[in-house]
Amino acid sequence: MANSKFAYVRSFELPDPLLPSTYIVCRLDGRSFHKFTDVHGFLKPNDERGLGLMDRAAEGVMTELRDVVLAFGESDEFSFLLKKHTTLYNRRESKILSSILSILTAHYVFHWPDFFPETKLQYPPSFDARIVLYPGEQEVRDYFAWRQADTHINNLYNTTFWALVQQGDLTPTAAHAELSGTVSAQKHEILHGRFGVNYNNLPERYRKGSVLVRKPVNKRPRSRQPPPWDGTSGEVEVLHVDVIADEFWEQRPWLLR
Amino acid sequence: MANSKFAYVRSFELPDPLLPSTYIVCRLDGRSFHKFTDVHGFLKPNDERGLGLMDRAAEGVMTELRDVVLAFGESDEFSFLLKKHTTLYNRRESKILSSILSILTAHYVFHWPDFFPETKLQYPPSFDARIVLYPGEQEVRDYFAWRQADTHINNLYNTTFWALVQQGDLTPTAAHAELSGTVSAQKHEILHGRFGVNYNNLPERYRKGSVLVRKPVNKRPRSRQPPPWDGTSGEVEVLHVDVIADEFWEQRPWLLR
Amino acid sequence: MANSKFAYVRSFELPDPLLPSTYIVCRLDGRSFHKFTDVHGFLKPNDERGLGLMDRAAEGVMTELRDVVLAFGESDEFSFLLKKHTTLYNRRESKILSSILSILTAHYVFHWPDFFPETKLQYPPSFDARIVLYPGEQEVRDYFAWRQADTHINNLYNTTFWALVQQGDLTPTAAHAELSGTVSAQKHEILHGRFGVNYNNLPERYRKGSVLVRKPVNKRPRSRQPPPWDGTSGEVEVLHVDVIADEFWEQRPWLLR
Amino acid sequence: MANSKFAYVRSFELPDPLLPSTYIVCRLDGRSFHKFTDVHGFLKPNDERGLGLMDRAAEGVMTELRDVVLAFGESDEFSFLLKKHTTLYNRRESKILSSILSILTAHYVFHWPDFFPETKLQYPPSFDARIVLYPGEQEVRDYFAWRQADTHINNLYNTTFWALVQQGDLTPTAAHAELSGTVSAQKHEILHGRFGVNYNNLPERYRKGSVLVRKPVNKRPRSRQPPPWDGTSGEVEVLHVDVIADEFWEQRPWLLR
Repeated sequence: MANSKFAYVRSFELPDPLLPSTYIVCRLDGRSFHKFTDVHGFLKPNDERGLGLMDRAAEGVMTELRDVVLAFGESDEFSFLLKKHTTLYNRRESKILSSILSILTAHYVFHWPDFFPETKLQYPPSFDARIVLYPGEQEVRDYFAWRQADTHINNLYNTTFWALVQQGDLTPTAAHAELSGTVSAQKHEILHGRFGVNYNNLPERYRKGSVLVRKPVNKRPRSRQPPPWDGTSGEVEVLHVDVIADEFWEQRPWLLR
Repeated sequence: MANSKFAYVRSFELPDPLLPSTYIVCRLDGRSFHKFTDVHGFLKPNDERGLGLMDRAAEGVMTELRDVVLAFGESDEFSFLLKKHTTLYNRRESKILSSILSILTAHYVFHWPDFFPETKLQYPPSFDARIVLYPGEQEVRDYFAWRQADTHINNLYNTTFWALVQQGDLTPTAAHAELSGTVSAQKHEILHGRFGVNYNNLPERYRKGSVLVRKPVNKRPRSRQPPPWDGTSGEVEVLHVDVIADEFWEQRPWLLR
Repeated sequence: MANSKFAYVRSFELPDPLLPSTYIVCRLDGRSFHKFTDVHGFLKPNDERGLGLMDRAAEGVMTELRDVVLAFGESDEFSFLLKKHTTLYNRRESKILSSILSILTAHYVFHWPDFFPETKLQYPPSFDARIVLYPGEQEVRDYFAWRQADTHINNLYNTTFWALVQQGDLTPTAAHAELSGTVSAQKHEILHGRFGVNYNNLPERYRKGSVLVRKPVNKRPRSRQPPPWDGTSGEVEVLHVDVIADEFWEQRPWLLR
Repeated sequence: MANSKFAYVRSFELPDPLLPSTYIVCRLDGRSFHKFTDVHGFLKPNDERGLGLMDRAAEGVMTELRDVVLAFGESDEFSFLLKKHTTLYNRRESKILSSILSILTAHYVFHWPDFFPETKLQYPPSFDARIVLYPGEQEVRDYFAWRQADTHINNLYNTTFWALVQQGDLTPTAAHAELSGTVSAQKHEILHGRFGVNYNNLPERYRKGSVLVRKPVNKRPRSRQPPPWDGTSGEVEVLHVDVIADEFWEQRPWLLR
């Protein structure tokens, strides 16, 4: 068979299994989304439609890949956590990364008209992805805390920046200069003092990002001791809650199991 | 700053550079495309629209990533070759893989209506991807020969199979049974003898797959000795030509340079 | 400088950092030690001199590399555990592996005359090594339990086998046949019934292998709260104790810290 | 069986195959050899005994591992080249690295008394190792050229430095200062003008390092067309020749085959 003569090239495909019993996090970012959001007229500092579309795309990932038990998103970025002991694709790195990435990308383009009914998609946006392994619970929690702390910091900055530009009539350059070196409290004060905005009253989605988990399923106790629900079945819900403190994790022990 | 306390989690992001001066091939495959093509009524054995859409999506990759100098596609699969000495994303594996994959996925969904104007996309399709390294020219050529030989084999089988089913009124099971153990010549004979089809007259796209390269650019010789064109600029063209014999490569020495 | 023209070849040296905060285990095995022990007349089933030499070589590793906090050895094999948060050689895999391996090899040859004063070393023995990562405490404990359970199994088999050969006058082939399919209790019975040997009275070194840890150092409390001793300083001691049950680990909490 | 309960820990041993058809180079360096050579009174700038011992240890590697077809050494460093298509240990990185490293280390200690009959080995020396892959012939040749150019540069510097110290009565600090910023020609001039030494007449071993290859074997032509000798059998010889120019490689085409 003609094929066999060339088939040796398969031997160059090397294995890429991820370490067992280790938490797998896959983080995606929009590629060149600065330009993309400009071209498509995203509202600043937060575009409800754009954030909703990201959430929808991430939900698509979780619906298709049930071993993804948690997702966290802000802006054009999303992070996905797989169950510690997942055997999805035999833990092959490129299969896991590419499935999550391709599903999210496809959903983003597919659902665009649902979220931007009046804005035609000018060209297809894309994302990149990386996988990071975390050996312990604390590191996983700190990873998501890191992303949510980043959301806080970015959103406070952006909200103040755009208030200065949109309501304060500053040029972007002047607004940047004004904010340079300021700490949190000063930004809160600018927002409140000059623009009457109480930052803490802004929508939680903007301040906390999006947290996707599944609603626990009430299993009918057929056997005396049904196995505990493991977080991989049931409906995905989008929350905007704190993931830095203990409460979120204590209420959902299956996430880190 | 709240952020710094958690930022240590970045140290778990390990480097993933690919070996320098080695050919990088990235191969993508449709995920669950058997079901996808059923749901969307793809014609068998070859759907001109579906093949055209794949070509269009691959062209999108080459337009955006200029260091991709060659692509070969068949069915729901595409392979991309990067220049041997590319420094794209510092040769980081996950960045290269995810960019190619995400761009192709996004283009596939985005351009769907152009190729399937009368078929609504029911749900977003996705792909997976892997990267394979080849150290030498011969291996790269054999890689593409392997894929094109595969195209030949699959297409001959599928063409005969569907002729038996569609024109010969066999059930799929019976058609499979009939073809089991047959060699090439026997399939040619079935096609010709029973269905009057000369396999070699079928469209080259079906028999040879799609080959995407760029048209050489005629540089205006501003300097006495302009550097030779390197395959990374200019218009992408879709060919259906043999890549197993020497001619294709000898005419395009820049592909392996 | 002539050198710079060729120095680009350094760019092919790729980074190989091991995942942070993960337990690093390095296991070494003798290469072709069946032949080596034959040539040098090692006693069967256990050669006190050979075991002592392995222990001495492993001690050399721990003396030189203080972040190795635990070692376990049996026969011609040794496993080394590094502190979870070690930054030795920036956690570069090949540096860690090669340092442990080369130190052990060198000590084995260097100390040969101390343990085999009447046997000239005929040729230099060698070892191979691999590194395995474990994300959690349980897995590390199970790793060492796995090696010690292996010691138990091998030693019971070997002790019975050599009793049959040396005292029972069986050929090796006949002894193998006799033991084939027997469980633990049957081997104990053979030893006790035929040869009057109570297996549990054999030296613990044979039944449990060697466990190397450091003796805790009593720090003089110069400051009010001296940092707790971390297992990396002080004298190495060789124990032959159980590492499967909890006691060993509970008494040495610094090993997994 | 007690063992099976823990045996799952083997699943954490991940595969580490090296890319096929790629040149494997393994480079070893002495660990802390500055101190080691001081303690053992090595002569400066070159100690004939020490260099001979390194050569002997490298020969041990080539004798045991026949797929190592070339070695190059200078000072306390040695590089080994494996045949491009070697299948030694299924190309597993840690097996190849650790075999070469352990064999060299063991030979170094074992043969010490042959080369230093009047100097007792005070403590066991050790080495570290790394593996580097090269995809093409040119890169392999440039790798060895890089090492030999390094030998030239280091030896010229060291020879001049020690002449200034040993014969010129400079302190090491003063000698360093005197050489700082000098080019090759100036060092040649210092050696010749002040010490009457014509650098080019120094032993080739010092100026070119050691090159280990095997002597071609004259096969008795049993069959009409015996396969060409492939460099893996026959006696190892130690040369001190140029490996930068073409001649060395043209005379030994099997090295890069």
